[in-house]
Amino acid sequence: MRSILLLASAALVAAAPPPAKPKTPSEIVAAAPRSAWKPVHPDNVLVIELKNGGKVTIQLAPEFAPVHVANIRALARGNWWDGATVYRVQDNYVAQWGNNESERPFPAGVVAKPPAEYHRPLKGLPVRPLGYRDPYAPQVGHAYGWPIGYDSTAGIANLAHCYGTVGVGRDLAPDTGTGGELYAVIGHSPRHLDRNIAVVGRVIEGIEHLSSLPRGTEALGFYKDKAQYAPIARVTLAAQPGTAQAAEFEYLDTSSPSFAEYVRARANRKDDFFIRPAGGVDLCNAPVPVRRIARN
Amino acid sequence: MRSILLLASAALVAAAPPPAKPKTPSEIVAAAPRSAWKPVHPDNVLVIELKNGGKVTIQLAPEFAPVHVANIRALARGNWWDGATVYRVQDNYVAQWGNNESERPFPAGVVAKPPAEYHRPLKGLPVRPLGYRDPYAPQVGHAYGWPIGYDSTAGIANLAHCYGTVGVGRDLAPDTGTGGELYAVIGHSPRHLDRNIAVVGRVIEGIEHLSSLPRGTEALGFYKDKAQYAPIARVTLAAQPGTAQAAEFEYLDTSSPSFAEYVRARANRKDDFFIRPAGGVDLCNAPVPVRRIARN
Repeated sequence: MRSILLLASAALVAAAPPPAKPKTPSEIVAAAPRSAWKPVHPDNVLVIELKNGGKVTIQLAPEFAPVHVANIRALARGNWWDGATVYRVQDNYVAQWGNNESERPFPAGVVAKPPAEYHRPLKGLPVRPLGYRDPYAPQVGHAYGWPIGYDSTAGIANLAHCYGTVGVGRDLAPDTGTGGELYAVIGHSPRHLDRNIAVVGRVIEGIEHLSSLPRGTEALGFYKDKAQYAPIARVTLAAQPGTAQAAEFEYLDTSSPSFAEYVRARANRKDDFFIRPAGGVDLCNAPVPVRRIARN
Repeated sequence: MRSILLLASAALVAAAPPPAKPKTPSEIVAAAPRSAWKPVHPDNVLVIELKNGGKVTIQLAPEFAPVHVANIRALARGNWWDGATVYRVQDNYVAQWGNNESERPFPAGVVAKPPAEYHRPLKGLPVRPLGYRDPYAPQVGHAYGWPIGYDSTAGIANLAHCYGTVGVGRDLAPDTGTGGELYAVIGHSPRHLDRNIAVVGRVIEGIEHLSSLPRGTEALGFYKDKAQYAPIARVTLAAQPGTAQAAEFEYLDTSSPSFAEYVRARANRKDDFFIRPAGGVDLCNAPVPVRRIARN
């Protein structure tokens, strides 16, 4: 028989341990009380239906990029992405999709030149410091369920580029992009993009439909010809009537004791597999647990 | 026309700048003198030919895991991977391949129970400190072209798990795995595996043939049934006669001034796209440049 190689997983795979052992990250998440979970509002859930049948669900972050998120909602409600495609997949970097902005007029309410929502005031954010070193920002932690870099001296905070992060494609500054062209991170976290681009959310389900697409062979991972594009059937908000099988989601409150316990366990892995816990964890390697709300 | 979204890339895309501008990382690599490049010995190049036509090339790291690397060479020379498959692809984690160890006898020379080559003495390594903070190791840097964590007090160093890192699948400790089952990282760097597993190398070409495979739907990303496995045609060393189109490779010497300049540029991106250079870079986001040796 093939040995089952117990590489401890970034996914949350539950397993029942003997009682004396320290809890694994997934056990901590499973044991978190109802009060530790916060619902995701359906206005913040964007559903991309791919023509091949795959579905990618994104949680939007209006707390950090309100104008871009409002644009994205208006584009969804206006069916602007009809006929859109995934036209760029660059290995260890991003998958990017959108429509032809110069040929397709925007629906009413779309701001053509949004402000540079690359960071926001730190004030007002319920920050939980991560507690471990980071090479990119003076401080890192979580707020409202999002991974952030921040600078208490400057009084600003930004969403961090982690695996699954969704950002707004743009041309050279001072262009900030409208939100019509979006990308999702499908590789090692490109944190050098932090504070250089508007981050609008993260993929919470179905990223494998983007990350397993064939890589584009042109510079920057663009597909060589249109026959390679992955067509998108439609993009809607979960709040819109008729959105296909819209699930409801909740995330683990990053200010909760359960989340603090989860981060500590991610930094000090004591599952049977591990011999030497690291004693630290990087911001993007403690992904905020998000799950479907179970309905009875 | 669709705007070309100039997300600066992790890949090395060359572009000619006006003379006054600071060099980009790719320009620094392109300008590195011949003396800054070190050849990869063909005994350290493992070529995996997938039945679908894709080819994955791995550079082995005998400096860090000599017994496991010797096993891998013996397995390749003994055609032990004939009939092997990629049987596990877990999103944002690893692609894993191998053969059935319990049914297939090892060729002569394979050590059935290798030592725990999870770290090595720091002494003897020409270390270049990265110069930026890391949450996982007391110090990080590069040696012999490899990203490492190290601890000067304890006098030990280990290969780091970055995108493309290849390690040895194993069961629970004290098992260390033989090298017959290998994985490559296809997501955010799982640095918590550092010093818990034998790292034997990295993918230097063709990782897209692993990273774009469909994800397995069973726990830990195992494929549900054998029909989903990605079959491997053969696995050979570039040094073996008859290895298909074996290319020759070279890496940028991590002790060279060019590499130091490259790391500084990765930490302080000043391409036209960037507004705010981070002033830091993480170990896995300054990948060591490796390229085919151009022959005239």
